[in-house]
Amino acid sequence: MTGNEIPEVVINRLPVYVRALALLALEGRRVVSSRELGGELGVTPAQIRKDLSYFGRFGKQGRGYNVGHLLDTLRSILGLDREWKMALVGAGRLGQAILGYGGFGPQGFHIVKAFDSAPGLIGRREGALIVEDVAHLGASLREEPVDIGIVAVPGEIAQEVIDVLVESGVHAVLNYAPIAVRVPAGVQLRQIDPVLSLQSMTYFLAQDGSSAAPAG
Amino acid sequence: MTGNEIPEVVINRLPVYVRALALLALEGRRVVSSRELGGELGVTPAQIRKDLSYFGRFGKQGRGYNVGHLLDTLRSILGLDREWKMALVGAGRLGQAILGYGGFGPQGFHIVKAFDSAPGLIGRREGALIVEDVAHLGASLREEPVDIGIVAVPGEIAQEVIDVLVESGVHAVLNYAPIAVRVPAGVQLRQIDPVLSLQSMTYFLAQDGSSAAPAG
Repeated sequence: MTGNEIPEVVINRLPVYVRALALLALEGRRVVSSRELGGELGVTPAQIRKDLSYFGRFGKQGRGYNVGHLLDTLRSILGLDREWKMALVGAGRLGQAILGYGGFGPQGFHIVKAFDSAPGLIGRREGALIVEDVAHLGASLREEPVDIGIVAVPGEIAQEVIDVLVESGVHAVLNYAPIAVRVPAGVQLRQIDPVLSLQSMTYFLAQDGSSAAPAG
Repeated sequence: MTGNEIPEVVINRLPVYVRALALLALEGRRVVSSRELGGELGVTPAQIRKDLSYFGRFGKQGRGYNVGHLLDTLRSILGLDREWKMALVGAGRLGQAILGYGGFGPQGFHIVKAFDSAPGLIGRREGALIVEDVAHLGASLREEPVDIGIVAVPGEIAQEVIDVLVESGVHAVLNYAPIAVRVPAGVQLRQIDPVLSLQSMTYFLAQDGSSAAPAG
């Protein structure tokens, strides 16, 4: 299988399929149709069949998908059957909230290093970690590499931090800073962007005519 | 125009179109083709034409879209030409990071109330706000309604908080708690889910064979 031919938008949908399939498996379901899976996710059955066709033949016409087999295969394709090491840059309020986030560990994502530039934070214990000086970010990551960098610094310095992460061998960046940043080809970047989520809800509020604020 | 016929996945793509169009407008571009817009966003030109066809006729065959007109129309459709009031529930580390997030205000989203249950946080000043006792959440929102609720409480109590928000007239919820929650029909819900973002990057890391951790 060559990864290059698969559109990134398809890859981005796979974790959502994995989550839905994991719920079905928990409920003891053994088979699911593309129609039912699509119905739960707001995706057409044709889209699901097309997305999965990139990775092989999973379903028999009219028989549906084997939940366990499809789940295991997608998890393996996505690399979710292993553990991933992450470094957090920015250990202020947002960074501390990320360190305390309960959702990473159970899914195999582990923050193994944390960095900040504030003298009051450097050396501070956060769970099993000691916050390191961000001035040593590159050296620290070359000594003990991580897979993913999480960026929780102010927007003004986010690009600079990301450049150091990439120079230090990080191939995937999750950016919480509210600013558009760039990475070179071959490096993955995802943005946590609550504004996009809000903007997809206001459509429905505007349709309702239920605004609490006077129209601007 | 009736909102009911438009698939939610189409609505969810519109803010991404708006962002790309706003960048093009900033660069002084007046016309863009569906091919070019799609190329920037990883969406097929056919998908863009189909998505936009729900809202009227924007482009002339072979002429491309007028950037300014399309941008204004989409912003109006999405309700982005007005101001929206939000209430934040949970003023701990994550809540304080959300209060300090610089991306909301410029896009017309304003946190006008904040709530917590911790005696050490209730009454605390956060910018222009005073943190209110979450015990008064319902009464406070009935007195001064908001459009959107932001939930930044521990997972165990997220559903309970969301139920109160909905009972108090909130029609849109942005949930940061790392747990699946439910809302009744007619209420919009979006989840800030960094794990889904991480899981869409590990595919590429697994293809690279560049894991920093031993395979699990």
